[in-house]
Amino acid sequence: MAHLIREKKPLLARIRRIQGQIEALTRALDAETGCADVLMLIASVRGAVNGLMTEVMEDHIRHHVVDPATDPDPERARGAEELIEVLRTYLK
Amino acid sequence: MAHLIREKKPLLARIRRIQGQIEALTRALDAETGCADVLMLIASVRGAVNGLMTEVMEDHIRHHVVDPATDPDPERARGAEELIEVLRTYLK
Amino acid sequence: MAHLIREKKPLLARIRRIQGQIEALTRALDAETGCADVLMLIASVRGAVNGLMTEVMEDHIRHHVVDPATDPDPERARGAEELIEVLRTYLK
Amino acid sequence: MAHLIREKKPLLARIRRIQGQIEALTRALDAETGCADVLMLIASVRGAVNGLMTEVMEDHIRHHVVDPATDPDPERARGAEELIEVLRTYLK
Repeated sequence: MAHLIREKKPLLARIRRIQGQIEALTRALDAETGCADVLMLIASVRGAVNGLMTEVMEDHIRHHVVDPATDPDPERARGAEELIEVLRTYLK
Repeated sequence: MAHLIREKKPLLARIRRIQGQIEALTRALDAETGCADVLMLIASVRGAVNGLMTEVMEDHIRHHVVDPATDPDPERARGAEELIEVLRTYLK
Repeated sequence: MAHLIREKKPLLARIRRIQGQIEALTRALDAETGCADVLMLIASVRGAVNGLMTEVMEDHIRHHVVDPATDPDPERARGAEELIEVLRTYLK
Repeated sequence: MAHLIREKKPLLARIRRIQGQIEALTRALDAETGCADVLMLIASVRGAVNGLMTEVMEDHIRHHVVDPATDPDPERARGAEELIEVLRTYLK
């Protein structure tokens, strides 16, 4: 899919960071870290997965629906811009 | 932390499944899979992370707060049981 | 905003249902209903608010960005269709 | 349910605030306010419903499971305290 080729590098970097967080979680379990700390690590993985979701959705809108930066129709460009802003607020 | 020692094996198995899902996601990006499929893979990672969170919270309640199966106080046992049920419903 | 005028009636009906659920919640508190039941009522309000959010976002995409049913560009129509499908799955 | 009697007043005040937010949302739809503003109002209702959920769960833990402030067992008190903290972080 065209847009994911262009955006692949930052997305793979994001995924590698999530893998690093999951390895930290595995180590915390192995080291018998306190339960509250383990829960906070899991909450941070969840936040990172939500961030990845938002980024892929935003890329999808820009590359497969309407790119607010280049669309010739100003109303449609504004509609796409608003949609991206709401997704960022709502999915965080 | 005592409870995570006892529950470590199933939690590590859950984490390995999440790592497998993330590898599938990396391969999907490398193979330039369609964006909608990539988004569905990310949604499934998120579901699995929520499942892990719920399981660790439930283990925490059973082992560090009140275990409904063994607590001598029936009201408190029922309160803990209800809490676990609500977490399962709400965090899924 | 144009699209919300057209879609106003079903959205107001949805909001009235949420208001009804909140009144049921108030009555449950007044009647000193069990805590677990109150939590389930709150969870159902949350589900209904998520449903409203998804519907307004979907209407926004159709009316201010790209309507998959009428857009002359088939790739863009498909991109918008996929986006709506992912939002429905992800925000539920 | 005992704890909801004691905590009823602040919970009803919270619910009234949510009702006020929903009335603002209805007025925004009637006034044909911009879609992005309507979405932000819905997001704020959702945040308030999550806040209500967290408060009722926290009250439930304190009154029906373990109250960290008064429980004679320090380990159990700490377990309940950690659980409340995680819920506040995770459900916000």
